[in-house]
Amino acid sequence: MAMFLAALDATKAEKIVPNYNIKVIMDFEEELGSPRLPDAVVKNAELLKADILIIYDGPQHITNKPTLTFGARGIATIALTTYGPVVPQHSGHFGNYAPNPALRLSKLLASMKDDEGRVTIPGFYDGISIDSKTAKILKAVPDDDVQIKKRLQIAESDKVGNYYQESIQYPSLNIRGMQSGWIDEKARTIIPGWARAEIDVRLVLETDPVRLLNLIKEHIAAQGYFVIIREPTEQERLTHEKIATFESEISYQSFRTDFDSEVGLWLRKALKNAFGEEPIMIRTSGGSIPISPFVTTLGIPAVTVPTVNRDNNQHSPNENLRLGNYREGIKTMIAILKEKL
Amino acid sequence: MAMFLAALDATKAEKIVPNYNIKVIMDFEEELGSPRLPDAVVKNAELLKADILIIYDGPQHITNKPTLTFGARGIATIALTTYGPVVPQHSGHFGNYAPNPALRLSKLLASMKDDEGRVTIPGFYDGISIDSKTAKILKAVPDDDVQIKKRLQIAESDKVGNYYQESIQYPSLNIRGMQSGWIDEKARTIIPGWARAEIDVRLVLETDPVRLLNLIKEHIAAQGYFVIIREPTEQERLTHEKIATFESEISYQSFRTDFDSEVGLWLRKALKNAFGEEPIMIRTSGGSIPISPFVTTLGIPAVTVPTVNRDNNQHSPNENLRLGNYREGIKTMIAILKEKL
Repeated sequence: MAMFLAALDATKAEKIVPNYNIKVIMDFEEELGSPRLPDAVVKNAELLKADILIIYDGPQHITNKPTLTFGARGIATIALTTYGPVVPQHSGHFGNYAPNPALRLSKLLASMKDDEGRVTIPGFYDGISIDSKTAKILKAVPDDDVQIKKRLQIAESDKVGNYYQESIQYPSLNIRGMQSGWIDEKARTIIPGWARAEIDVRLVLETDPVRLLNLIKEHIAAQGYFVIIREPTEQERLTHEKIATFESEISYQSFRTDFDSEVGLWLRKALKNAFGEEPIMIRTSGGSIPISPFVTTLGIPAVTVPTVNRDNNQHSPNENLRLGNYREGIKTMIAILKEKL
Repeated sequence: MAMFLAALDATKAEKIVPNYNIKVIMDFEEELGSPRLPDAVVKNAELLKADILIIYDGPQHITNKPTLTFGARGIATIALTTYGPVVPQHSGHFGNYAPNPALRLSKLLASMKDDEGRVTIPGFYDGISIDSKTAKILKAVPDDDVQIKKRLQIAESDKVGNYYQESIQYPSLNIRGMQSGWIDEKARTIIPGWARAEIDVRLVLETDPVRLLNLIKEHIAAQGYFVIIREPTEQERLTHEKIATFESEISYQSFRTDFDSEVGLWLRKALKNAFGEEPIMIRTSGGSIPISPFVTTLGIPAVTVPTVNRDNNQHSPNENLRLGNYREGIKTMIAILKEKL
């Protein structure tokens, strides 16, 4: 915000007048998850009508070079629960007799993906294709896969894509949490009563989230499960050998703007004029931003122009802003203000 | 203990003199897990030499009829850990790229057992056979499988055995606890750094516990894992695609005495004389009792003579003893004291 105000002052001092009108949305509750922003946007949709939406949010590429981000994956979540005996049972007296819900859950999760992290549910990746033009732009991002792996301390990455940028063009199915019974000093010799996995599904533009969640649900049913959206009753437990509770929520959808859209070409030109080289262009951010719902609501092509350094400890202790990024951010914004549309 | 003292008083009053000598081991720390008993037995092995060991412990069969229990399964435990990125990663930025340790663990666990709870690791059940004579005795236990399932609220049991008593004649492999990341209100959109399963393996007489644990460990290695007994180093993480930490402990072994052993035949005769019918004979208790190690140390054939009611809330609030069981327990002990050897 300070960068933008400084950029406005600078253009005024230089008597530069943008040849377009500006409407500004400022969100001071982003660290709270922007709870009131979507509503405010819906209520003021008429007032906020525009041709182009620029989002000044988030960090630049790790190389800290001028960056444009053209989209973000959306996110949906699933809580998946399987059942064993109605209350935990002594694993000596009932081990080999009472079905174990953690084994049930493990088998379900294992059936969804292959050893290299690819979802094996038919149709999950339908509609997505990385053509040669897109591949070229993805490969132009100066990522260093060796460095990424070294930083994560992994010997090999999952194989949904052939490299980092390609991998995040696809929806994901990630086990973000899992529990059954207890571990470590709390471990008890029981057959647990239930097992639960928390799953997040990152969404991309090609994939209807409702269809994606249904594919997963149908896959579970196809493994012989009676799938419900609440805890089973005693009668259901006594009737159905395998029961799964499937609770899902679509948090927000993805958005993605074409590189060659009017806003894309215009911003690329502005940044090239300011810095003398093409910006790094990110087709999709892997993470989801709560701004997408009103990109969709407003129906305006949007591009993110990140300006801050990636090691800024965003939302964390020792949050920081590199002075060079502050200066270059102002320069970026001046360039955009004076670029002819 | 009170039953036994009353039985001694009664035989004295009736001038019944047992035609054998008695040595008594009293354990007042059973609810603490008998921490000093095994040592005391080892130290006094010479003093405790005997021909027969009778264990007056635990509840009778659920029908509350006179019961003899000829053995108990032993127990070993495993803590199995798989790894993802060295610290949890943002599931948006790295979902489809950083391997998920919960998926890895799920696939490993799923590979160990079939859908009906049978261990699929070759050799796991080797050496165990239920011959027709044994089957007859197992089937003679008046269990009601329909009632057991109803109580557990399960539609179907695992299929290691064809019925409850048969199922506990085999070693088990039970996931007693499992965790990765967090669930419910603590769920976070991450790729967790690790996933852990706590496993208990109930042991039977036919199965060497060291061999059994090795079979499981070798099975994990055969799935492409680098198996170690501690956390991996950075170098190992960068070199091995799949790493598992396998920490195991053999808590105590199983014991089992033949129905037709001297002690078995003698106790059956005593109980038949007292109650006019054959006792219920349990070949193996599914649970493990910390008494097994010194059954093994002393090397004496042992049989458990349980006397209390099964709904006695053992080790729990409202612990109780049914008066009828107290009286019948004394009757049982008198019968054993006066039975000729």
